Amino acid sequence: MTTPDFAVWAPLRNRVALVLRPAGKPEQDLTVVKMTPDEDGWWRPVEELPDFAEDDVRYGYLLDDASTPIPDPRSRRQPEGVHALSQTFDPTGYDWSDFQWYGRQLAGGVIYELHVGTFTPAGTLISAVDKLDHLVDLGVDFIELMPVNAFNGTHNWGYDGVYWYAVHEAYGGPLAYQQFVDACHHRGLAVIQDVVYNHFGPSGNYLPQYGPYLTDSAASTWGAGVNLDGEFSDEVRRYILDNARMWLRDYHVDGLRLDAVHALYDTRAVHLLEDLAIETEALSAALGKPLPLIAESDLNDPRLITSREAGGYGLTAQWSDDFHHALYVSLTGEKSGYYADFDSVAALAKVFEQGFFHTGTRSSFRGRTHGQPIDTRRTPTWRLVVCSDNHDQIGNRAAGERLSVKINRRQLALAAMITLLSPFTPMIFMGEEWGALTPWQFFTSHPEPELAAAVAEGRLAEFAAMDWDTAAVPNPQDPATFGRSKLDWSELETQAGQELFEVQRQILRIRRDHPDLTDPRFDQGSATSNQKQGWLLVERGQMIIAANFGAVPAEVELPFPIDSLLEVGRAALNDQLAELGAHSALVGKRV
Amino acid sequence: MTTPDFAVWAPLRNRVALVLRPAGKPEQDLTVVKMTPDEDGWWRPVEELPDFAEDDVRYGYLLDDASTPIPDPRSRRQPEGVHALSQTFDPTGYDWSDFQWYGRQLAGGVIYELHVGTFTPAGTLISAVDKLDHLVDLGVDFIELMPVNAFNGTHNWGYDGVYWYAVHEAYGGPLAYQQFVDACHHRGLAVIQDVVYNHFGPSGNYLPQYGPYLTDSAASTWGAGVNLDGEFSDEVRRYILDNARMWLRDYHVDGLRLDAVHALYDTRAVHLLEDLAIETEALSAALGKPLPLIAESDLNDPRLITSREAGGYGLTAQWSDDFHHALYVSLTGEKSGYYADFDSVAALAKVFEQGFFHTGTRSSFRGRTHGQPIDTRRTPTWRLVVCSDNHDQIGNRAAGERLSVKINRRQLALAAMITLLSPFTPMIFMGEEWGALTPWQFFTSHPEPELAAAVAEGRLAEFAAMDWDTAAVPNPQDPATFGRSKLDWSELETQAGQELFEVQRQILRIRRDHPDLTDPRFDQGSATSNQKQGWLLVERGQMIIAANFGAVPAEVELPFPIDSLLEVGRAALNDQLAELGAHSALVGKRV
Repeated sequence: MTTPDFAVWAPLRNRVALVLRPAGKPEQDLTVVKMTPDEDGWWRPVEELPDFAEDDVRYGYLLDDASTPIPDPRSRRQPEGVHALSQTFDPTGYDWSDFQWYGRQLAGGVIYELHVGTFTPAGTLISAVDKLDHLVDLGVDFIELMPVNAFNGTHNWGYDGVYWYAVHEAYGGPLAYQQFVDACHHRGLAVIQDVVYNHFGPSGNYLPQYGPYLTDSAASTWGAGVNLDGEFSDEVRRYILDNARMWLRDYHVDGLRLDAVHALYDTRAVHLLEDLAIETEALSAALGKPLPLIAESDLNDPRLITSREAGGYGLTAQWSDDFHHALYVSLTGEKSGYYADFDSVAALAKVFEQGFFHTGTRSSFRGRTHGQPIDTRRTPTWRLVVCSDNHDQIGNRAAGERLSVKINRRQLALAAMITLLSPFTPMIFMGEEWGALTPWQFFTSHPEPELAAAVAEGRLAEFAAMDWDTAAVPNPQDPATFGRSKLDWSELETQAGQELFEVQRQILRIRRDHPDLTDPRFDQGSATSNQKQGWLLVERGQMIIAANFGAVPAEVELPFPIDSLLEVGRAALNDQLAELGAHSALVGKRV
Repeated sequence: MTTPDFAVWAPLRNRVALVLRPAGKPEQDLTVVKMTPDEDGWWRPVEELPDFAEDDVRYGYLLDDASTPIPDPRSRRQPEGVHALSQTFDPTGYDWSDFQWYGRQLAGGVIYELHVGTFTPAGTLISAVDKLDHLVDLGVDFIELMPVNAFNGTHNWGYDGVYWYAVHEAYGGPLAYQQFVDACHHRGLAVIQDVVYNHFGPSGNYLPQYGPYLTDSAASTWGAGVNLDGEFSDEVRRYILDNARMWLRDYHVDGLRLDAVHALYDTRAVHLLEDLAIETEALSAALGKPLPLIAESDLNDPRLITSREAGGYGLTAQWSDDFHHALYVSLTGEKSGYYADFDSVAALAKVFEQGFFHTGTRSSFRGRTHGQPIDTRRTPTWRLVVCSDNHDQIGNRAAGERLSVKINRRQLALAAMITLLSPFTPMIFMGEEWGALTPWQFFTSHPEPELAAAVAEGRLAEFAAMDWDTAAVPNPQDPATFGRSKLDWSELETQAGQELFEVQRQILRIRRDHPDLTDPRFDQGSATSNQKQGWLLVERGQMIIAANFGAVPAEVELPFPIDSLLEVGRAALNDQLAELGAHSALVGKRV
């Protein structure tokens, strides 16, 4: 065990004291240790620490005249919740077994997104380990964990985190997290951690008492923004950069997904994202393994994934929501809200060829032009992460319904074929592999009645503003909302579940066996579509995918003769003609 | 088994016939199969192949009126030498056990260069497998094999290759190669194959009979150059690009070292190297593992390792001979030939800070300015591969003597500390890990007496032109020259061998444990030197390396107090003063 140094940054405080409590001792059994600051505002104990501080210990800080200790901004554990004392955790204590693990590069990979609390009935990291062989069988390469940082209450999506350095206790805490990552590596699975650096949750955030972490000038719908470029922001940025390093180094995480980077307001000459890329590259060399950084961004700005040498930020990849929107409109015909401009299969064809749909073109939803073209001659396709459904798309529908309840099983298979055989980096949301019918709803568990009511009302107001039927919106605070959102693994055992799972397993095998499909050069492929009939034809090297999104059969002339490798729905070949029944598709290889 | 299609490119021929001979049958037992060309000059059999063609079979081609078949340019095996028939080999037949191998990224890695024929007494790939645990114990990550392609005779450095698709029979042929790579992966070692695309060897090259592979306009000291930009060069480039793909795909090789890229004369808008980078990136995504490309280049041109987005060729790394030269001069004081401008430790300090010594500065050896500065703000240090000795530096000395016979053991340890703890990608030449005293001489085994004589005379003339003592130059054709060049593994068991091995093992452990040393950001380090006293001080983050190259003790004031992690020679700390005896060094960490 290494004893932590209990250092804490509080540059504007006149007095800071460390409060310690041995594990298992009553609440009032506190030891107070004096601290002194250095010139940068970092306070450290001046007195010798009691012996029990060598073990895991509860602790907090008294700022100025306060009589109640508050948690550590860099707390590793919050065993009694976000308002109580922190607990130390020595990340070097774990006996890793992944010494022959050299990471996995993102290029060529398939991601599986999961939420620990609803992935299994128990909702823990350890219970998730039991499902890893299922994911290996499915054929994915990366597991992306939705945020696991400490948040208010017992269950939450995770984007309400307030202790970015802690692993939520109900998931098993930091030790279980290490065991989970180790178990993944043992099976050849890499782990991507979703991290939120753009805002803090609404309760349990004591950081503003310590220093100017927040700034109103960067406020978003989620509240005050993070102070990335104001006074004292050097230390605030270090808070973020050190956090990224913590996951990658202490927990052997193989990459990060950066939540909503468009909400990172930063006017500095070197953007936080570039700083993150620089430090992560350095860490990658130190650890000898790739450490991809994936941004969630709705900016359609190729700068994010452009190399730093070419003036970009040097991130590894970013989400392309445009792919989802084009696919969604093609499948459902819905064109409300931000779907407005996506003219179904024509939009999908454009995304296949250019990565973005909005490439400096008009976005009527935004009331302005949006985006910039990707340099398709030099940007590999896999730098875009795509999906047919994800936690946001599902959870932000009023009743949290999956695509599986909006379209039929044939259409689900069709969506899988288009997404998983695309040249991009596909991502599957947990349960999608068998067409799960369980909803994934917006759930919270704020213990404070006022906050609970405000969250519930806010949710209703949000949908009312969009003219949605608010009767369908479940109360986020109702425990049943959380319960309903858990995966029902018995669905996988049904015939319908098995069939769809088997199709997706086959699709992923075809993806691996026929690299023309995933050739990262945009110019090695083309896509054509017929919007009236609703079909899409993707040609990549020797491979062809022909898909009919429409409810009426369609015939598509192929550019060259193929042998079919897989059909979904009623699809057949008649020489060089693909005869595609309603909601069907096939993939084939040149004869 | 998949039967090969026996296709061959011969665009200017009027007739081509395939000649087949079953394995084990006498030489005259030939079957001739007619062929017909397509519009691109590719000939394929028009008649049905005999049944025995399904097994491994000897074959060759008759061009126009020729009566003697010549080998296949893409031959996988030449069991009876480079002038005899080729033999088919099905690379898909091998049962790989490396399905959980996802490659290794170059960043953070250490390379070990070896020549199969002289690495072990038996000189085979299979006997090399027995030494892999020794390399794991040493702590290297990549094994770089000198060229294994088929060449004239039984032994050769490998740069005289004429069948780039074949694995030299005396090494064990292609099956042994697959077994070797598999065995490496089993131990976590990645394999880099050295490939020569700039010239062909002097005997056994039948390619010019097939088509315009060569061009005099790109001639070098090694003979005619390769036709990369003239008429018909599309297919010649494919010959190279397909060869790279062969190693990476069929043989599971993890990266390529590209010999002497400065001799690739290519005026096309997309240079062959960029094409190679593009196709290798695509293959990397298909295989889901990193595939580094490392250029040997004496151009000091950062364009090679600049990303394609920024207008570079997009190679992964390149050799920095400047590092070697600066170190060599610092160690030996020799300043003849191309060492002329390297002002010992001052040059070494510049290389530590800038990667190249010649950054557009005058090279008196070249009689002109040379090179261009690296963009040190955006180029990671590990893109430069450095060494204190390699096959070229040793073998191109008259008697092929290693650094170990030019300097003492303390100096060898000092060289190891500087090289292996540098922020670059270090490379160790086989035997260097115990300070092998065996020479590594230039050896050939051309069966043709005239060629043998010409090679021997050429070697003498080369050294005579440099005013060297030619009496020391061994005859390359003398079998004893080859024999002397084999490693003597009993040296490793001596006390002196064990001591140096242990020092290098420790140095590599320090390299792994203290990532500040290898932080890839040039600006995270600095180097100062005192040329008169001969010391070098490298500061990187919390780490310091202080080295005295001189024969007189030196005292070096350190920028901050450190604890020493390792000393070589008589080096000690006196507060913030490093007291460095002759040829000593220490590495330490900030207190």
